[in-house]
Amino acid sequence: MKGQYAVIGLGRFGSSLATTLHQAGNEVLAIDRNEERIEEYKDHVTYAVVADSTDEEALKSVGIRNFDAVIVAIGDDIQASILTVLILKELEVKKVVAKAINKRHGQVLYKVGADWVVFPERDMGERVATQLMSPNVLDYIELAKDYSIKEVKVPPSMIEKNLRELNLRARFNITVIAIISDGKVSISPSPDRIIKEGDILVVIGENKDLDRFEKFD
Amino acid sequence: MKGQYAVIGLGRFGSSLATTLHQAGNEVLAIDRNEERIEEYKDHVTYAVVADSTDEEALKSVGIRNFDAVIVAIGDDIQASILTVLILKELEVKKVVAKAINKRHGQVLYKVGADWVVFPERDMGERVATQLMSPNVLDYIELAKDYSIKEVKVPPSMIEKNLRELNLRARFNITVIAIISDGKVSISPSPDRIIKEGDILVVIGENKDLDRFEKFD
Ligand SMILES: Nc1ncnc2c1ncn2[C@@H]1O[C@H](COP(=O)(O)OP(=O)(O)OP(=O)(O)O)[C@@H](O)[C@H]1O
Ligand SMILES: Nc1ncnc2c1ncn2[C@@H]1O[C@H](COP(=O)(O)OP(=O)(O)OP(=O)(O)O)[C@@H](O)[C@H]1O
Ligand SMILES: [Ca+2]
Ligand SMILES: [Ca+2]
Ligand SMILES: [Ca+2]
Ligand SMILES: [Ca+2]
Repeated sequence: MKGQYAVIGLGRFGSSLATTLHQAGNEVLAIDRNEERIEEYKDHVTYAVVADSTDEEALKSVGIRNFDAVIVAIGDDIQASILTVLILKELEVKKVVAKAINKRHGQVLYKVGADWVVFPERDMGERVATQLMSPNVLDYIELAKDYSIKEVKVPPSMIEKNLRELNLRARFNITVIAIISDGKVSISPSPDRIIKEGDILVVIGENKDLDRFEKFD
Repeated sequence: MKGQYAVIGLGRFGSSLATTLHQAGNEVLAIDRNEERIEEYKDHVTYAVVADSTDEEALKSVGIRNFDAVIVAIGDDIQASILTVLILKELEVKKVVAKAINKRHGQVLYKVGADWVVFPERDMGERVATQLMSPNVLDYIELAKDYSIKEVKVPPSMIEKNLRELNLRARFNITVIAIISDGKVSISPSPDRIIKEGDILVVIGENKDLDRFEKFD
């Protein structure tokens, strides 16, 4: 099921977030007070509206309450960012995600009710530092052309068997790193673990082998 | 062995990168043309210098050639960013990493010789979008208190045996997802794979089990 998202602020971070959500098939409303930004991205989202998000009436008039999540991607104007989050929570928006530009800003965003605060530049700074010091194997795998980590729904024929019997290593050349069952993740599951209907396997391997496994039934 | 890094530009991304590298015990030279920025971060890096990185002489005088990697974290001044990378490659700096603010900028940075171009805001936009749509299992694992993915050097007693014989799943409750041998990564290795001296295993499991495996010899 696809979601409905509103993104406020189409800077580098906000525009990347909005277009990624839209490309994945979600309904995306983009809001920016800068008309040029709206012109630039209007064909890459579902709706695009010029509005100031500190104007409560403007947010009400686009039905902001009905979105699954609203992302506040305003950067340098800290006051506007905080006021926007405050208004969104007063309007009872279910999930408010907000960008912070520093620690203090992040603390205030949580205080006024943000459900999740992200620090894009800080977090990427840490990631790139870590990768410079020791290339991370998981990043390597995610970036490697021929390999992936995938979540695959188990085919009906595999239900009620355990991992040892299924022997996916030998049959498909893939490794099971986790099982998601009823939303609960079991990491590094035991070979005795019995697969239930609806279980999702997190598997790692070559893309061609993963494809073969995904198509099996 | 710790490294020597120079970071040019102490915006949000650059300052996070520089302080993370320094906290990890590396030698970090920070350069910014803005004196206030240098004042702000001088106690969080090894050396901090006010300089314009488009000035070749200034870069030479700090011995920029001798660093393991130089990171150009200049954002909005695209021209300064490109010119800086060009000069660094002319000075034969081993590894130049550069921040790009959009695709075109990134293409030019590669053309003038950057070894690695990063797009912090774009990449974090994609990551946050992905996480909003479906909480990512790998992030979950990395964040889960009790579980980790670790790179472990194989203990001497395991050398020249294959993965089937070692049976780490049964003995330690951990799963091998990759082997790094002479810097080459083999993902989802076969049970027949023989472990060589110096090999590093990428393993996933509960922290207590990983600790037990790390201490084994
Ligand atoms: N009150 C507001 N209502 C609507 N849009 C706003 C408001 N305040 C700022 N914006 C928009 O938010 C966008 C992002 O803001 P800004 O450029 O300051 O952030 P930034 O942190 O530099 O972003 P990035 O690093 O992601 O490029 C801009 O397009 C701006 O027009
Ligand atoms: N030629 C230069 N030499 C040295 N420092 C520079 C040069 N040009 C820019 N800088 C510095 O680079 C830093 C980052 O630049 P800027 O703030 O434009 O990037 P940004 O993309 O908005 O950064 P972020 O999103 O990471 O905060 C600033 O502190 C600026 O003073
Ligand atoms: Ca900016
Ligand atoms: Ca930024
Ligand atoms: Ca891949
Ligand atoms: Ca962990």
